[in-house]
Amino acid sequence: MPSPRFASDNVAGAHPTVLEALVRCNDGPATAYGDDPWTRRAQQRIREVLGLPEAAVWPVFGGTGANILALRAVTHRVDSVVCASSSHIANAETGAPELVAGVALVLVPQVGGKLTPEAVRAALPQRDGDHRPRPRVLSVAQATERGTVYTPDELAALAEVAHAHDLLLHVDGARLPAAAAALGCSLAALVGEVGVDVLSFGGTKAGLVAAEAVVFADPARAPDAGRHRKQITQLASKQRFVSAQLLALLEDEAWRGWCLHAHDRAVRLAEGLAAVPGARLAAPVETNAVFVHLPAEVRARLAARWSFETYDPSAGLVRLMTAWDVTDAEVDALLADARREAAPPRSAE
Amino acid sequence: MPSPRFASDNVAGAHPTVLEALVRCNDGPATAYGDDPWTRRAQQRIREVLGLPEAAVWPVFGGTGANILALRAVTHRVDSVVCASSSHIANAETGAPELVAGVALVLVPQVGGKLTPEAVRAALPQRDGDHRPRPRVLSVAQATERGTVYTPDELAALAEVAHAHDLLLHVDGARLPAAAAALGCSLAALVGEVGVDVLSFGGTKAGLVAAEAVVFADPARAPDAGRHRKQITQLASKQRFVSAQLLALLEDEAWRGWCLHAHDRAVRLAEGLAAVPGARLAAPVETNAVFVHLPAEVRARLAARWSFETYDPSAGLVRLMTAWDVTDAEVDALLADARREAAPPRSAE
Amino acid sequence: MPSPRFASDNVAGAHPTVLEALVRCNDGPATAYGDDPWTRRAQQRIREVLGLPEAAVWPVFGGTGANILALRAVTHRVDSVVCASSSHIANAETGAPELVAGVALVLVPQVGGKLTPEAVRAALPQRDGDHRPRPRVLSVAQATERGTVYTPDELAALAEVAHAHDLLLHVDGARLPAAAAALGCSLAALVGEVGVDVLSFGGTKAGLVAAEAVVFADPARAPDAGRHRKQITQLASKQRFVSAQLLALLEDEAWRGWCLHAHDRAVRLAEGLAAVPGARLAAPVETNAVFVHLPAEVRARLAARWSFETYDPSAGLVRLMTAWDVTDAEVDALLADARREAAPPRSAE
Amino acid sequence: MPSPRFASDNVAGAHPTVLEALVRCNDGPATAYGDDPWTRRAQQRIREVLGLPEAAVWPVFGGTGANILALRAVTHRVDSVVCASSSHIANAETGAPELVAGVALVLVPQVGGKLTPEAVRAALPQRDGDHRPRPRVLSVAQATERGTVYTPDELAALAEVAHAHDLLLHVDGARLPAAAAALGCSLAALVGEVGVDVLSFGGTKAGLVAAEAVVFADPARAPDAGRHRKQITQLASKQRFVSAQLLALLEDEAWRGWCLHAHDRAVRLAEGLAAVPGARLAAPVETNAVFVHLPAEVRARLAARWSFETYDPSAGLVRLMTAWDVTDAEVDALLADARREAAPPRSAE
Repeated sequence: MPSPRFASDNVAGAHPTVLEALVRCNDGPATAYGDDPWTRRAQQRIREVLGLPEAAVWPVFGGTGANILALRAVTHRVDSVVCASSSHIANAETGAPELVAGVALVLVPQVGGKLTPEAVRAALPQRDGDHRPRPRVLSVAQATERGTVYTPDELAALAEVAHAHDLLLHVDGARLPAAAAALGCSLAALVGEVGVDVLSFGGTKAGLVAAEAVVFADPARAPDAGRHRKQITQLASKQRFVSAQLLALLEDEAWRGWCLHAHDRAVRLAEGLAAVPGARLAAPVETNAVFVHLPAEVRARLAARWSFETYDPSAGLVRLMTAWDVTDAEVDALLADARREAAPPRSAE
Repeated sequence: MPSPRFASDNVAGAHPTVLEALVRCNDGPATAYGDDPWTRRAQQRIREVLGLPEAAVWPVFGGTGANILALRAVTHRVDSVVCASSSHIANAETGAPELVAGVALVLVPQVGGKLTPEAVRAALPQRDGDHRPRPRVLSVAQATERGTVYTPDELAALAEVAHAHDLLLHVDGARLPAAAAALGCSLAALVGEVGVDVLSFGGTKAGLVAAEAVVFADPARAPDAGRHRKQITQLASKQRFVSAQLLALLEDEAWRGWCLHAHDRAVRLAEGLAAVPGARLAAPVETNAVFVHLPAEVRARLAARWSFETYDPSAGLVRLMTAWDVTDAEVDALLADARREAAPPRSAE
Repeated sequence: MPSPRFASDNVAGAHPTVLEALVRCNDGPATAYGDDPWTRRAQQRIREVLGLPEAAVWPVFGGTGANILALRAVTHRVDSVVCASSSHIANAETGAPELVAGVALVLVPQVGGKLTPEAVRAALPQRDGDHRPRPRVLSVAQATERGTVYTPDELAALAEVAHAHDLLLHVDGARLPAAAAALGCSLAALVGEVGVDVLSFGGTKAGLVAAEAVVFADPARAPDAGRHRKQITQLASKQRFVSAQLLALLEDEAWRGWCLHAHDRAVRLAEGLAAVPGARLAAPVETNAVFVHLPAEVRARLAARWSFETYDPSAGLVRLMTAWDVTDAEVDALLADARREAAPPRSAE
Repeated sequence: MPSPRFASDNVAGAHPTVLEALVRCNDGPATAYGDDPWTRRAQQRIREVLGLPEAAVWPVFGGTGANILALRAVTHRVDSVVCASSSHIANAETGAPELVAGVALVLVPQVGGKLTPEAVRAALPQRDGDHRPRPRVLSVAQATERGTVYTPDELAALAEVAHAHDLLLHVDGARLPAAAAALGCSLAALVGEVGVDVLSFGGTKAGLVAAEAVVFADPARAPDAGRHRKQITQLASKQRFVSAQLLALLEDEAWRGWCLHAHDRAVRLAEGLAAVPGARLAAPVETNAVFVHLPAEVRARLAARWSFETYDPSAGLVRLMTAWDVTDAEVDALLADARREAAPPRSAE
């Protein structure tokens, strides 16, 4: 069996402090469905770190749940969401945005997973008339599915184009902590300070068990979010266990250390792979993903020992990801295998 | 602040062995999305204890998620689900069965939360013609929202009427362990042995953090269940943490002890309340819920110290629930308050 | 083959003046999708006759389309619609309100197809909390599915209870002309003057080919109605042909004569049936429906020659309906058959 | 006001024989909802002319209704439909395929509105795994939104690639008669003989008032189509008036004459425009649409007298369409205007 180690960042377990937080909050009865002190503290903390003092914060179990709640709560049944052709919501959620959130998608060409204001403007459908959905949300991922990050300036420019066209800016932040760690900035610098309206705030990929939150900068934009959360099946009855995880994530910026650890291991992995004969990095490492072209036979042999995603078989493009718990030894083990597969021992001649 | 202790069984924390199981499974990387050994073991264990050797088992986060997956996966877009007028799916899931699972509901009059074959037959709409949805599922809760349980014979009779009309029998088993503990029978005696087709198997209310499973006796009835689980936002990426909870629930029938504990405390609570002047039990205790009529002034004063659900204000009907972690001392504290409120000290005359 | 004559009011053809109107409007090119003079005139005329000078008027093809557009356009995805347990939207539209309009239904007990303010108040679910849909619309039918009509005062009282609970009042007026004709009042007396917010204005059953309109008293309540109409497939490309029918319906109150004709034939039919041995009228005739209890053998034999709906087989309750084109001779032919079947010729003794 | 004459083919009225057919079928009562002789004859006739002897045929009011019924009836809630990026279902139905039919869309790059087997194969998402919808239908338009047609061989090749990947082939045939007329072939040559599974058969654009039909080659593929038709609001109560139109369309291949008339006028229009200074045909005329590049000032001035669709403002690409009732004089009037605008009279210098 190949090791799942580098297949994704969700193959990692949870950071031990997260499980300790679960144990700590398991202390007698607590009101269900979020009316508990852990949830109130988590909501307050999230408002603070994101720089959104008025925001409504709704903890949820998972990332797809966060995106679906985010989109469903701010749209009507005649609306569309503008997003990158490579986005998770368009490609990896089994049609949930269309079929559960209930919005049409408008796909925009991207480069390295990122959108530009120009590309958005060019793709925006006509707003009037009754024959097309009304574009209501511009959704971008931070970090993107290609491991790239938007700078605060880039986000501010996207917020500007969104607002100029009467769209809300949604950030799919399943890897927002990774982006902030990579950029060396605060979370607020990527959210409250740049005009993000709706955020899927991710925790699971950073090191939690299962906890995310949906954040609406202006609660009036999503007046029914509570009912939507229940309806799309993301209301936890024993919600303190979700909120305690979010608190652990934010405590002393724990996320930053976890994400930097992952980032550093990704850099080590990328540097090592770049030196493998025949291998070629597809892009510099920005977060915890390494996109690399590998020769077909290296890929095939490596796959026997390590799982990874193949993005483009014809181009030999694969993705390897690190997480908070990846060790240097694990990175080096993969690199050793890659080097060996790239230059297999010849039989004596 | 009134104590939430008896407001519901989901105010309880998780049993300590459950958190220990989380810590134990947090051991290095594991393939995401359910392709991990904990999930495989949990699926196999669930098949065994339910007496459904061929079943497809899909772990999920929560109870509404379980019901929505169960119903969506076995129906088409022109179908209806027949259920009790008092059912959770009709009354406490914010329309998710209609608006996310995508089925119409046919409500059947109930007694004590329970349906009879006769009531189901009488309510069944005509099957043919294009002007009504096609009834496809009969859904009952075990235990019911009124704290009552179906005996195996009663379930078998409902399965018979369902199958005679080409309906699948779905059991909303958010409290199935409580029912089996109360009846002193195996889980299989309430599922595999009586012809249940689809089960929402509950763990959270019994003592888990957040873990349930949807079980299809015949996987061919729900060929797209995997896609549906993802689409309705109930696919956990780090699924081992869900599955490890389910394993802890089933280990040595842990659920039975937890549920009997809750049941015994409910009996103690009911007996004590029955002795309070002016109070009257609405029904015998069958599981962990106590339904009792309380005089208005007792209810009002008790509410200042203890939270509980009022089911029928005009009849003074309230519900109190126990859980695995309720102590005799907590029960006695409430009873002492109730007695005091029922006979408040008179000022000396 | 039994005659469909009395099976429903939609077995009738279209009044000849309607087909003449179609021919008249078939005159050269006209802008599609409603930007044509016939549509503008029909919209203006409908505003006038309903006493709703500011209303938005959206022509559609059919009655289910009208109801679905009406409900979808004024609700959100977490809302419910309160309606009679006997209503068409709950019983005869294949779940379209839940599954296409996307609202949950709250069923209210009715008498003779009609709701009372008391019954509505008693059935209204709690508005707050996230576990139930938000009631947003009170929907009643005029005339009802049982052939009864609401007086203007009764409608005003329902509007009052609706508005007091922040609900909009929707009238399913598939047979609104029949109701106004029976009451001898204007259409406005049943709509604009009593506080109706949303109307499905019916024309087909009165004598058109296929034309209805959805009317929003305050256009701001349904800002996306145009997109909704297209989306639910009710936007006619050659819309002048729909609008010309509506104009023909309203021209010189043509509907009133057509509906009175049907009404008078229903009265004749009811009086004749009341005299048939063993038959018993279930209710006085208010519009164009006759509900009558018939002995089983009469029913069976009559069914060989005439189609009709059986509402309650055990009570022998059947419905017969008249339309604008039913003749006295047709009524008398059925009555003759009924009398003969009720007293079949004995063989000579 | 500019003339709508060339804005679309649905600005035309209905052919007089169609209105005569309406008058003829308006003859006494007829069973509602399609159980009438006109509907049975139309269904049988459609089976014959399409070469689909076993097909299920469901008359509907309009084109979007036809497409939505077609797609909803053959898909499940986890499915996707593969179609051209330029398709009507993706661009001009207000999201109804996603939001009412309930399927995700997969967009395929097209040339001249047409798909090739290679383009389809390249765009097909992976079928397995739970993170993407399952592709279930390949949908193409005949004629396309760009006025082009697929030859029988091209359709057969698309059917082959569809079936090889376990997809059904759906043809959006809103302009199928125009395509068959242009190709000089039978309707069967474009449907039954080439392996089309599901057809939206269009009549309105050819010359009807409002009538289309959805055809399932194998009724077992859409067992719930009747309920779906009612649910999506496309079941006509007085259905004979829809079916009589379809019969008029098919009587002695009336459609062929009407469509050839439109085609010939489009050719005349195109030839005339090609001779206008500065104008350039974007593509040869294949059906009744003319795509032509016009200089900006010509476009602007012409728009004051004639309505037309602008497809690409930067390229000056506009669409003009003809219909069964366009006269040579109307074509010549537009051409005269175009020529004048292209070479406006200079003031004397």
